[in-house]
Amino acid sequence: MAVRKRSSRDIRSESRLDVLHALLSAGESNRNELARTTGLSLATVATVVSELLAEGLVEEAGLSVSGVGRPTTTLRIHGARGLIAGIDVAETYVSAHVFDAALAEVGTADLALDEHETSAEYVVDAIVRALDAAVASTGLDRSRLLGVGVALPGLVQRSTGAISVVVPKWSWRAEDLIDLLRERVGLPLVVENPLKAIATAELWLGTGRGAASMVTINLGTGVGAGIVLEGQILRGATNSAGEWGHSLLVHEGRGCRCGRRGCVEAYVGAPGIQQTLREIAPDHPLADPDLPQRDVIGALATALRSPTPDPAVVETIARTSRYLGAAVADVVAIINPELVMLTGWTAWALGDDLLPGTEAEIRAQSPNGAATDLTVGISTVRGNSAAIGMATLAFERFLGDVGLVTTRATLAL
Amino acid sequence: MAVRKRSSRDIRSESRLDVLHALLSAGESNRNELARTTGLSLATVATVVSELLAEGLVEEAGLSVSGVGRPTTTLRIHGARGLIAGIDVAETYVSAHVFDAALAEVGTADLALDEHETSAEYVVDAIVRALDAAVASTGLDRSRLLGVGVALPGLVQRSTGAISVVVPKWSWRAEDLIDLLRERVGLPLVVENPLKAIATAELWLGTGRGAASMVTINLGTGVGAGIVLEGQILRGATNSAGEWGHSLLVHEGRGCRCGRRGCVEAYVGAPGIQQTLREIAPDHPLADPDLPQRDVIGALATALRSPTPDPAVVETIARTSRYLGAAVADVVAIINPELVMLTGWTAWALGDDLLPGTEAEIRAQSPNGAATDLTVGISTVRGNSAAIGMATLAFERFLGDVGLVTTRATLAL
Repeated sequence: MAVRKRSSRDIRSESRLDVLHALLSAGESNRNELARTTGLSLATVATVVSELLAEGLVEEAGLSVSGVGRPTTTLRIHGARGLIAGIDVAETYVSAHVFDAALAEVGTADLALDEHETSAEYVVDAIVRALDAAVASTGLDRSRLLGVGVALPGLVQRSTGAISVVVPKWSWRAEDLIDLLRERVGLPLVVENPLKAIATAELWLGTGRGAASMVTINLGTGVGAGIVLEGQILRGATNSAGEWGHSLLVHEGRGCRCGRRGCVEAYVGAPGIQQTLREIAPDHPLADPDLPQRDVIGALATALRSPTPDPAVVETIARTSRYLGAAVADVVAIINPELVMLTGWTAWALGDDLLPGTEAEIRAQSPNGAATDLTVGISTVRGNSAAIGMATLAFERFLGDVGLVTTRATLAL
Repeated sequence: MAVRKRSSRDIRSESRLDVLHALLSAGESNRNELARTTGLSLATVATVVSELLAEGLVEEAGLSVSGVGRPTTTLRIHGARGLIAGIDVAETYVSAHVFDAALAEVGTADLALDEHETSAEYVVDAIVRALDAAVASTGLDRSRLLGVGVALPGLVQRSTGAISVVVPKWSWRAEDLIDLLRERVGLPLVVENPLKAIATAELWLGTGRGAASMVTINLGTGVGAGIVLEGQILRGATNSAGEWGHSLLVHEGRGCRCGRRGCVEAYVGAPGIQQTLREIAPDHPLADPDLPQRDVIGALATALRSPTPDPAVVETIARTSRYLGAAVADVVAIINPELVMLTGWTAWALGDDLLPGTEAEIRAQSPNGAATDLTVGISTVRGNSAAIGMATLAFERFLGDVGLVTTRATLAL
């Protein structure tokens, strides 16, 4: 792969994205304010706004008068321009979310997947059913959909041109899934792995916008990182960047479900946190491996809120913070980002409990000075951030299709 | 720090760098060939070549006639345009190298540093003496120097504007060194840490040119990584990216000289390799901690070349390959590069012995598919690659000063 060349087309494209991002985060704005928040010249903002108005992506929301001078036109994203779907596919569920063009959620539908049914037909059928149900819940017609983004578990890769999806539990060939999906969805489609979708959501809607470098640390059953450098998701040579969950934390340590040993995920994934509890208190009621993961994590959070917190739970959180901090410190050593945002359902349930210890460990374990200017926080993007991120990627593809932006090669189908 | 904006100025700047890089690697070339190797249009190449001819950076080397048609003008870098110095400062030595403008080495001088003398005055004085001696060895006048690049050990950082140098053994304030250096050198100056200098050397003169993503793994007394993404060195928020040597390999493992435990460097730095030998064969003659590091590494290489290689040495190399492979696999998991190049004096001495085991371990320990398209090799850039890299950075600064390129903010003084 050759080094990507920049063109003046890229610069125009970036200006349009900057204006859209600024409008999304402001809700309503005007040309002067957009020039200030984006750092673009007023002339550029005026040109870009005209293009976005012409494409129906931005609308005029009225006039506002402030102090002396001419009244200014208030602008906002034209939500009714169309619908975008973001679908999060995991090994056990499909969660479809429909957004308007201003990325406000307008409908959703969830389906459970039978883990033992692993044919491509079964999975694609579930995706399509969830999508249709989510669209139906909006009361709007399916023809209003501008695009669909699907986050597939495991590694969605590009290697020598072909897209492949590697999901250890799913045995079918990736090409079959991709072909079937395209055929059954019948709309502009983007696939990506959830880590990159989650980082994209943070970039469009979270604290990430404006940071020159950010790492999102996704904590759930699996764990992984999304890396954003200068406003772009780091994809890597085969779209596998961010597989931090399967980097090494403990040499020859716990077995990981990926088949290797000592991976970060084996310690800070939800089952890993439960295993830490089991090591501390083997007979603890929450150590039962048959309990649903989310119930365990929720119960740990509840236990910590008690006036007399369970010492085994307190110790589990302390150890998990140290594991997580040491593992994040490796990313800090290698990438040296400005911002690390913890996200995912474990982070939302336990983030406030994990954050102080994790942050202290990151600072203690990072090489001298690498964490000096680092900000560590819990993401403010809630809901299904993989689905939200996929919707933003599908929206970017739509913007590309209508000629407004030159997106980096995403996995568009 | 805001997201960097691209401008058409950057694009012109990149074209000029591309042509210079292509000329450097070809030695001699012509406009048509340059258009082919850079992917730029013939018109752009013609414009860029005129600019470089006008600045005296490129010269016409003659006419060549091939087959039918007009003879073509052969072009090459105008080495006599001036001199560039690259200086590698370590805790125990200063090594100054002087290059012509075509980056061919024309003079060098080395000085030993007394590790116990750690005043800024002492270190700066040694840098200036080495520089002057290296220039004197060329027989050319110091006034021919276009710029000087100095690689300083430890972390050369930018944090909230100020440049600081963190060298654990050196107690003086960084500002004093920087001020003194600027005053005593009296020439356009660039400072950087050796990891980024080494990656820059690989990018200008090694296999890295043309790779969209590359990681250089420097193996010496200390170890670290240089990360290149889309032709740019990853600096990080505080210029600390690449401190992979102090990422975690073994949780609560060997003590590292940085004060933490289990760092990669404690296993694959030269003293770490010797410690592995000591663990295998405590009484081995090469396990003596008083032996000079380079002698130990050289003797290990010699022992492996014997018809009956010492089993303790063979086992040391096997374990070191596994440590190194596991540690590089973490970078592969996070960055997913196209190319990993091993470099530094340990890699040059033991690289061929370490490579097969290291590469196998990288592939075994990387997440599914992250290493699919990965190339692992030993750098072909020899000599003092930190000094070579600093000379290229000083050359880039010179190109910036004469208005030919817009360099990324380097640590220019």
